Amino acid sequence: MSKPSIPQGTRDFSAATVRKRNYILNTIKKVFELHGFQPLETPAMEQLQTLMGKYGEEGDRLIFKILNNGLYEKKDKAALQQAWDSLLEKPSSNTLITERALRYDLTIPFARYVAMNFNDLAMPYKRYQMQPVWRADRPQKGRYREFWQCDCDMVGSTSVFNEAELLAIYARVFKQLAIPQISIKINNRKILAAIAIYAGYEHHLTDITIALDKLDKVGWEGVEKELHDRAILADGIGKIKMIVDVQGDHASLLQHLRKHLATIPVGLLGIEEVEQILAYLHSLSEEAMQLVKLDLCLARGLNYYTGMIVEVSTNAVKMGSIGGGGRYDHLTDLFGVKGISGVGISFGVDRIYDVLEELNAFPETIYTDTQVLILNTGKEFEADNIEVLKAFRVADIRAEYYADANKIDKQFKYANKRAIPFVVIIAEQEKDNQTISIKNLITGVQEALSLAQVIQTVQS
Amino acid sequence: MSKPSIPQGTRDFSAATVRKRNYILNTIKKVFELHGFQPLETPAMEQLQTLMGKYGEEGDRLIFKILNNGLYEKKDKAALQQAWDSLLEKPSSNTLITERALRYDLTIPFARYVAMNFNDLAMPYKRYQMQPVWRADRPQKGRYREFWQCDCDMVGSTSVFNEAELLAIYARVFKQLAIPQISIKINNRKILAAIAIYAGYEHHLTDITIALDKLDKVGWEGVEKELHDRAILADGIGKIKMIVDVQGDHASLLQHLRKHLATIPVGLLGIEEVEQILAYLHSLSEEAMQLVKLDLCLARGLNYYTGMIVEVSTNAVKMGSIGGGGRYDHLTDLFGVKGISGVGISFGVDRIYDVLEELNAFPETIYTDTQVLILNTGKEFEADNIEVLKAFRVADIRAEYYADANKIDKQFKYANKRAIPFVVIIAEQEKDNQTISIKNLITGVQEALSLAQVIQTVQS
Repeated sequence: MSKPSIPQGTRDFSAATVRKRNYILNTIKKVFELHGFQPLETPAMEQLQTLMGKYGEEGDRLIFKILNNGLYEKKDKAALQQAWDSLLEKPSSNTLITERALRYDLTIPFARYVAMNFNDLAMPYKRYQMQPVWRADRPQKGRYREFWQCDCDMVGSTSVFNEAELLAIYARVFKQLAIPQISIKINNRKILAAIAIYAGYEHHLTDITIALDKLDKVGWEGVEKELHDRAILADGIGKIKMIVDVQGDHASLLQHLRKHLATIPVGLLGIEEVEQILAYLHSLSEEAMQLVKLDLCLARGLNYYTGMIVEVSTNAVKMGSIGGGGRYDHLTDLFGVKGISGVGISFGVDRIYDVLEELNAFPETIYTDTQVLILNTGKEFEADNIEVLKAFRVADIRAEYYADANKIDKQFKYANKRAIPFVVIIAEQEKDNQTISIKNLITGVQEALSLAQVIQTVQS
Repeated sequence: MSKPSIPQGTRDFSAATVRKRNYILNTIKKVFELHGFQPLETPAMEQLQTLMGKYGEEGDRLIFKILNNGLYEKKDKAALQQAWDSLLEKPSSNTLITERALRYDLTIPFARYVAMNFNDLAMPYKRYQMQPVWRADRPQKGRYREFWQCDCDMVGSTSVFNEAELLAIYARVFKQLAIPQISIKINNRKILAAIAIYAGYEHHLTDITIALDKLDKVGWEGVEKELHDRAILADGIGKIKMIVDVQGDHASLLQHLRKHLATIPVGLLGIEEVEQILAYLHSLSEEAMQLVKLDLCLARGLNYYTGMIVEVSTNAVKMGSIGGGGRYDHLTDLFGVKGISGVGISFGVDRIYDVLEELNAFPETIYTDTQVLILNTGKEFEADNIEVLKAFRVADIRAEYYADANKIDKQFKYANKRAIPFVVIIAEQEKDNQTISIKNLITGVQEALSLAQVIQTVQS
């Protein structure tokens, strides 16, 4: 038997990690529910055809496909061989060989769920979803083949009040997680579309968003080069830069946009959406209002956004965005249900985890490990030890008895390795004095107390 | 685009289902932690070789295998073709085509984790794990291809005090879940081994356990036929039945066993283990003591048990076992780490869910849906509506504002469909009187109140 291992890019999560991640997820969950969102969980496996073609060519390649079971029982070997041959020739897939695949994100399964259940769902439908996803990406630092996503979306309402709600959710979550220096950048795809028209490149919107999306990494010089490589001429580049490379408060930025884009219908729509969102947010959440900043350079990579886009980061730690989202008008179109506008945000759980780790901001209360270990002092004290164990549990104290008759040294080692703060000792002396010894392994202080006092000591 | 669907045997879990399942898992989790168990989560994908050969031939066939990505990029097409050919001929697998697979249970990943991390773990290592598993079984009522398992195991301690702890955990969990008429049957594999020796069929232990395991379904006649089919003669069958087909309290059963098996070393060991476990349990948990019953016919299907075996059911609902487990001495041997004894139990989450559903025993408090919907009464009241929304959230009340300007009828329909108990209405009249109308959709009562009173109404 060779040494056991786990697949590249996957991780075992031990106790502390599970608790920290659950702390993040539970905090977010409570805020989602405060705002009326409901949980949904979809299966790890989706039909392959549900996923294929939804994430671009690269995505199709990175989807984990599941081999059909019982291939050897199939009759039509010729068809199977043909499917296999094509698999060896190009990046393809065939339902004869693979019908199912692991979900790649939570958005497409959500759209599939809405399309399947459209007639039964109360509209607007507001759901949140927190589950792992799988991607056959090349593993590297911070990039895994199995990782958690945490999304909240609402479909079936066109009101931009929802956009304000989602921005308020961001502000509330990060306040509760105590992550400082949060920046919530927003922009609007309609404004970007108007800029493309204004620059004379109406049909290059995707090129422009792809180029702008790289601004943080490559600076303006890089963006200009990218635009140039994508066949946008200097005049167009100049116009784009003139509109988006502007700093200022909301009022001045909106005035600037109105000046140049108000005559372009889609531009005016975009400007009005931003104004309405900010007005709603102003009455809804002062906290969020202080964190939200209109950033005309914000583009976001995904093509399906059609209105507001948003991205969250913290300046307290060097880390990419820790959240993002936006409005999309055609997501369920993919599954034959048209005209259902939606808006959603997601939280980057792994990065939020790293931020909290770096800030040392996980609260002490999440560590629900064992609080006290009762040492095994021998058969003659076992009845007393078990009595104390029972009393701890009645008092809701997480307690263990060291069951094996090992040397006391070894038992202390176990307590230390497990980081159990208290150890209880009952032996001759304690028995004679009708006391219980309790040792605090952090301070080293040992006391002989009554049972009630011991319980109080552990609880305090 | 064809109608979207999900893979056969998988399920979408909507809000109520997620909440009910989490109620079960959280209840169990707290009891696990009270007894010193710590969470572990392993990846959905394991190396194929970690799983293959661990669940018998049938298991090997039912493991979901993941197709390697990028097969078309591989150079050695001849080797691939050979691997493919063997896949078409017999139930086999080949790491050239599939290196990874979905976990089939939580036990083997746990053993793999212990073997991989043996030098770093505090021993005894006590972990619990609650995650979905996948099996390519033929889907049928109550049998799914994705379902949750919930296990708690401890390895690295041979003391049967741990057996008593696990029995106490069962009793505490089912008491907290308020499932009545719980029966916790225990037996011991060493006693079964002694019975095989006593009957003159030392090497037929597996045959005997397989036959006995069917007693509930086929009765004694069926068991006798099964034993006969497995080449056990009438005399042997008679001896087996004479030992195991006995009713009585613990003392009389143990006396019966001592009378017949005390001269067989493994039998004596088994009898002493049962006695010790019962003695520990007597001092540890009166509750558990009342539910535990020695049942000499209990066999359990799995071959890896070597000591106590346990199975839980309720007589309140017609349903198979809702939990089971036992002691195993050689689990990590599979991964090259020898001599680590362990003992574990698992909870049948899906069946416990069905039991609670049938008993109507899910508590009301788990439904953390939206408590109040603020109706959209028009643009002119929007500021007031949002003010009330903010006040609700400050008071930690789960509230929504109906963002779209739809007809009031439609808004009420939404509240009803979502089962939101309260609706708030602010229009002309309320504005004039400086009140807020709140309607209880369950009783139909509508009142005009102050904000403080409205908040109190929702909270009460």
